[in-house]
Formats: sequence, C-alpha cells, structure tokens
Amino acid sequence: MKNNVIIVAGGKGLRMGSDLPKQFIPIGGKAVLMRTIEAFYHFDKDINIILVLPASHQEYWKELCESHQFGIPHTIANGGETRFHSVKNGLALVEEGLVGVQDGVRPFASIEMIQRCYDAAKKYPAVIPVIDSTDSLREMIGGEKSKIIDRSKIRLVQTPQVFHAATLKKAYLADYNETFTDDASVMEAMGIDIHLVKGEVTNIKITTPLDLKIGEAICLTCCTRY
Amino acid sequence: MKNNVIIVAGGKGLRMGSDLPKQFIPIGGKAVLMRTIEAFYHFDKDINIILVLPASHQEYWKELCESHQFGIPHTIANGGETRFHSVKNGLALVEEGLVGVQDGVRPFASIEMIQRCYDAAKKYPAVIPVIDSTDSLREMIGGEKSKIIDRSKIRLVQTPQVFHAATLKKAYLADYNETFTDDASVMEAMGIDIHLVKGEVTNIKITTPLDLKIGEAICLTCCTRY
Repeated sequence: MKNNVIIVAGGKGLRMGSDLPKQFIPIGGKAVLMRTIEAFYHFDKDINIILVLPASHQEYWKELCESHQFGIPHTIANGGETRFHSVKNGLALVEEGLVGVQDGVRPFASIEMIQRCYDAAKKYPAVIPVIDSTDSLREMIGGEKSKIIDRSKIRLVQTPQVFHAATLKKAYLADYNETFTDDASVMEAMGIDIHLVKGEVTNIKITTPLDLKIGEAICLTCCTRY
Repeated sequence: MKNNVIIVAGGKGLRMGSDLPKQFIPIGGKAVLMRTIEAFYHFDKDINIILVLPASHQEYWKELCESHQFGIPHTIANGGETRFHSVKNGLALVEEGLVGVQDGVRPFASIEMIQRCYDAAKKYPAVIPVIDSTDSLREMIGGEKSKIIDRSKIRLVQTPQVFHAATLKKAYLADYNETFTDDASVMEAMGIDIHLVKGEVTNIKITTPLDLKIGEAICLTCCTRY
C-alpha cells in the first residue's frame, strides 16, 4: 500500500520571539523541518512527502535546501488560512493508500513509532499516537471553580495521525468547524472511531525558545539517529 | 503570617535507571533537592523548611550537604508509605500560618511563582499553580474507545500547593484514600474549594533521564538564579 505524509508547516512562528519561523530554526545544526522530513524518509524511502508551507516561505525554504544540500524528494503545497485548510491543500496531492499528517515542528518522531502508526492504519481507518499525562489534571467548571479529573483516563495526543487516504479525503469535504483541532477530530465528526497507539515523550512540538533547548537535549540524549 | 514548606522527597527514584535517587542527582552542578530548597529560602529567608526523606536516605543527604557546604536550615521528617503519609509526617512539624507542599523533584519554581501562591493563600484556604495543556487531549471511554475533550477547560496541576496550616492539618486527619493524588485532592474531599493561580512551563518534575537533560537546558536558558 502506498505511503504518503502531509507535513504541515503553516505556522508563522510568532511565539518564538524570532523573525525566523520556528520550522526553519536549526536544532543540533539542522533545521527542524529537515529533521521532520528525514524521519519519514528513513521510515520509507518511497513515501510520497508533501510539505505544506505558506507561499511567503517557499522561496526561503528552497534556498535553505540548496545551501544545506538537502536532497530528500518532496512536493510543496500552499498553506491555508487554518491547519484544516493547509491539510486540505496537501491532501489534494495524495492519490491513494495511507496518509499521515505530521506537525512540521515535531522533528523527533522515531522510525519505530512512525512504523507503529502506519502498521495500525492498515487495519483501522484512523490512528493516532498518544501518551499518558504525568501531571494531575483539573477541569474548569464555569469561570472560577474546578474539579480534579482521573488522569488515568486522559491521553495527550501527538502526530503523525495516519488514515486511509480515501476516508480522510471524504472527511475533509466537511465545512470548516472550529472544533477541528486535529485531523482525528475531522474524522470523528464523520462518525469514525479513532484507534490509539503508543506515542513518545520525546515526540515534542517545538513552539517556544525553551522547546528549542529541550530539542537540543533530545538530540544529545535519546537516539543515535539524531 | 509564618510561612512553612514541606518538601516531599520520599521517592526511591526507580524510574531513573540509576542507583542514586533522582532528588540527589545534580543538575547544573547542584543536587535537584538543594535547588528545590534554595528556591523557598530565596522567597523567604525565615521560612520553616521541612524536608521529608525516607529514613534510609537521611545519612546520605547529610553527607551530601556537608560535602557541598549546603547551609540552608531545614528540619528532616521521615518519609511514609505513600505521599499522603509523607506529607502527614511533615505536617506534624508545622505549627501555624501558611504551609506549602512542594515536590522535592521540582527544582525550578521561580520566586515570583512561589510568592504568587503564598500571597493567594492569605485569601484562599487552598491554592495551586496550574498551566494550560499545549496538546490535544482525549478521554478513554471503556477499554478501547476514546473521545476528544475540550482542552481549553483542562489545567495541568503543579506544586507548590499552599494552604492554611490549620485547615490542611484537619484535612489530613482523614483516612488514606487512593484518590488522594495531591494535597488539593485531600482538601477537596473535605469540601474546600481550590483556588488556581498561574504556574510555569519550566516548573517541571524531574522523573526520567530526559527530564535531567531538560533541567540542564532550563538551567542554561531560563533564569539568572540558576
């Protein structure tokens, strides 16, 4: 079955306190986005990689690839107004098989975890990696009050989220809705059950300057690939 | 009003893959537990600091303090079977005023945040610091199924949790119950509302080898105090 991945890097990186969008910032000497792309390439050298970038970032990205002799083949799609629209643009370039959707700023997904997600997606139409919460959790009730909730029932959601391409395409025919915070929620709105697999604590999203430092620590500590 | 803090370091550190319990491991050249104690000392030089340690760790700790010329005054209480029992042992050494309960393995609480918690506790009987979730969250329903939950309603709970000492002592007269995952939950069982204040993403718990690396990154990045 053909593997595809849509890597969503639509963010303008306003939270980084930096002019350079976060997906282009180097960790361990290599741009975050290059690490993200490499992870999927090492999982499957024949995977169809679609990178969704705002039109205004595409020239910069091409220059970055040239100057770093980054040669992993990928197609570029235009970023949309929201993540939903960006994924939809990427999905237009997918024909068949399985399709993963990955946050561009998650550079540390291991090959084993990517494999686990795509393997499960052969059996289930919608697969997402999750981890447990190590913190106690509370739920707000009204403006001020809150109550403790049973954290053993809660999972933190990561990416790649992997789907049957045909089913995801159908789900993305829906009108945009603010409750669509990830792709699983778009599938769920169509009545499809979401299958959970084991994620990884190191599979972090790089969104703040501290995350960049944590990313450096992950590069040094956790995996020979990095 | 007199300030007290119970620093709970009862853990045997089995998750660290190391013989040395995690609270004794150095970050940025200084044991985690020393950093935790220092934070409260810098907040209030007159604070009554009670450190709860398993009896089997106390000799090691005293030697560590001597060899590092660590001179911040503190009293040691014996660790109990669970966190509940450890806190109860510490609480026996508190007389009056406000009492914070802090995880021994949270070395990076800022003075500003500690101040915020103790200030709010002058007005409210039970105060805890919380942060938002940056991940999408799902709730398990039964064994396999799950549903997305509105993450804007969820808060991740940190420490120090700060209380009126007299009220916390009353709450700790309760019989031990497995739902007591933190001190706020013990207070809540007595019908007391929990007041939330702003926590900090850098106020992490050191429980895994990766956390140690993240801690080093926090030392280097985030605060001149470290």
